[in-house]
Amino acid sequence: MKDKTFLMIPGPTPVPESVLLDMAKHPIGHRSSEFSKILESVYSDLKYVFQTKNDVLVYTASGTGAMDAALSNLINPKDKVLSLVIGNFGQRWAKIAKALGADVETIEVEPGKAIDPAVLKARLDKDINKEIKIVTLTHNETSTGVTNDIKTLVSYIREHGALSVVDGVTSLSAITCKMDEWGIDVLVSGSQKGFMIPPGLSFLAASDRAWEVQKKCERPDFYFNWETNRKSVIANSTAFTPAVNLFVGLKTALEMIKAEGLEKIIERHTKIAKGLRVALKAINLKLFVEDETIASTTITAVYPPENITVPDIRRILKNDYDIEVANGQNQLKDKIFRIGTLGFVSERDAITAVGSLEATLHKLGHKFELGKGVAALIEYLNK
Amino acid sequence: MKDKTFLMIPGPTPVPESVLLDMAKHPIGHRSSEFSKILESVYSDLKYVFQTKNDVLVYTASGTGAMDAALSNLINPKDKVLSLVIGNFGQRWAKIAKALGADVETIEVEPGKAIDPAVLKARLDKDINKEIKIVTLTHNETSTGVTNDIKTLVSYIREHGALSVVDGVTSLSAITCKMDEWGIDVLVSGSQKGFMIPPGLSFLAASDRAWEVQKKCERPDFYFNWETNRKSVIANSTAFTPAVNLFVGLKTALEMIKAEGLEKIIERHTKIAKGLRVALKAINLKLFVEDETIASTTITAVYPPENITVPDIRRILKNDYDIEVANGQNQLKDKIFRIGTLGFVSERDAITAVGSLEATLHKLGHKFELGKGVAALIEYLNK
Repeated sequence: MKDKTFLMIPGPTPVPESVLLDMAKHPIGHRSSEFSKILESVYSDLKYVFQTKNDVLVYTASGTGAMDAALSNLINPKDKVLSLVIGNFGQRWAKIAKALGADVETIEVEPGKAIDPAVLKARLDKDINKEIKIVTLTHNETSTGVTNDIKTLVSYIREHGALSVVDGVTSLSAITCKMDEWGIDVLVSGSQKGFMIPPGLSFLAASDRAWEVQKKCERPDFYFNWETNRKSVIANSTAFTPAVNLFVGLKTALEMIKAEGLEKIIERHTKIAKGLRVALKAINLKLFVEDETIASTTITAVYPPENITVPDIRRILKNDYDIEVANGQNQLKDKIFRIGTLGFVSERDAITAVGSLEATLHKLGHKFELGKGVAALIEYLNK
Repeated sequence: MKDKTFLMIPGPTPVPESVLLDMAKHPIGHRSSEFSKILESVYSDLKYVFQTKNDVLVYTASGTGAMDAALSNLINPKDKVLSLVIGNFGQRWAKIAKALGADVETIEVEPGKAIDPAVLKARLDKDINKEIKIVTLTHNETSTGVTNDIKTLVSYIREHGALSVVDGVTSLSAITCKMDEWGIDVLVSGSQKGFMIPPGLSFLAASDRAWEVQKKCERPDFYFNWETNRKSVIANSTAFTPAVNLFVGLKTALEMIKAEGLEKIIERHTKIAKGLRVALKAINLKLFVEDETIASTTITAVYPPENITVPDIRRILKNDYDIEVANGQNQLKDKIFRIGTLGFVSERDAITAVGSLEATLHKLGHKFELGKGVAALIEYLNK
């Protein structure tokens, strides 16, 4: 049906109607006192979500823009960067670092696995001359639905002395991430995920140590320059014309986040994702990530049943039930599909998704006891 | 009054309600076939506005992002760049080029003046060793309300052999700008101006010659990389998650632009701005740019009357009449105010602005014959 599509992809994610309506207001001047008040509120609330006392810079750009901003303010050509790669978005860090002329080494694991902290520790221990300047990490890998143990990984990086640069695009405001307490040096995220607004804004915060390294960056990118952007944050302003309407929506979304509270939000995500996993198994689907300790609570990757294709599942889910789920990326295309339960997602949405998936698989001839998925989900949610 | 503010600043500019309502729809998946259709339409219509056969890249970023994208794909450190500076935005080109390590020379004129083509020609003629690789220009200088004679300037640059890189942020879809016919090498613009949508998207098109130079760029920025972004344009896709809602609005706005027609739109801007100038003079205001041949038809800068301050004018216009006009920038702050008549602006808006300005100046004790401005404007518009 027209206008009925419900997004259960890893992003964009559903947006509350109050946010959408705020975004539909006429834009206001970005140098006006009204807009400055909106910025003041946004900048303050972002610190809460980032769990940091550092300033959070906001770029009018997608999440990759903030990733570019992170490295293009730190790397000088030939700097040694260690990229921990557990999927496409981990790979993206390595690509950005290479584009900046860095000497990039990767530790890569097969899709569906997380980085073993012991492997990182061994590599860092070997680096007795402290050649590694930066380690890039992905908190929650969107392409596979795996969450790294950032807390432990970052603690090893801290011990070594390199900077940790963390992609929190699909984790912030959904999965526990304590920037200051864990000692993360640079943390980035994007608007169209846990922040519950459409894509177009991205965020970056940096530790004092990272700011020191930034000072030594020979050619920080002009648009993404941390220093210029921080000056504007401190002045409740923006360095360049911002996506005004998205900021207006962000203010409302952050107020919703504060009202619900980070802990409750994280609990909600955990409960829904775990319930979804139970339900998927109950209808004889195989999860891509079986290890509960690393399975993402925002994105769940699933194998299609034998003899049923991912495109068929996605097509019927979309055409008949107006639900969009994501295909696998690159080498995982058509091998898995991914269900996002990120941001503005409720238990009802999980029930809707599982019910509609049952209906879809039933049409496609998958063998399972109809209703079992919804039943398992409800039992899990209500226990 | 709440919700009544009317923007007559150089940007953001007023947005049609149909665009605002389109933007308020739930975001759709950026990898969906529906979104691909929107992109197809947008990419095609942008060529019309740019008057080019080249692909127009769209960045989720503000106009400065596209300026950064222009130079960070062309400049290698120590390249010689000539920046023609007639105000802050001309200066911005020079700053970006410097941040990229270029050897930057500027030709600067005092605020309110345009570049004399003969001066450029003389400088280029002197460059017998063809050391100058890039010349940056501003089509319409937002900070002063001056329009450069881009056609002539670009023709000299063409003769010399350097690349012309033109800021069309406040000119495209408002002031005649024929990319291919005039031989512009790189042309950038932003969404919140003539394109009639809120800020957050920016545009870039490059000539075949510029694409050749891009290939030799050692370290093009990752996010702004032309090649990656062009591949996506050709596939009716985007390289990274785009500001989906803004694209949906842009599609509608571009359809409005096509329906009205570029020539008619340019005529409308010219008529309104010229009428405004006549009206301002009729109420004894002094224009910052007196020379009609270089006065912008999208932004009009005005001196306040003696003994009346710019902040007072802006405050009363805003508080009592809900109209926002811009202050001067940097050294021109409080010395001039700037009225934008850019994008979704009608004759009625001009009448509103002049009438409200009369009311404001009347309150502030300015000496003029009340009604004269509106009368002069109407006479001009109706003749």
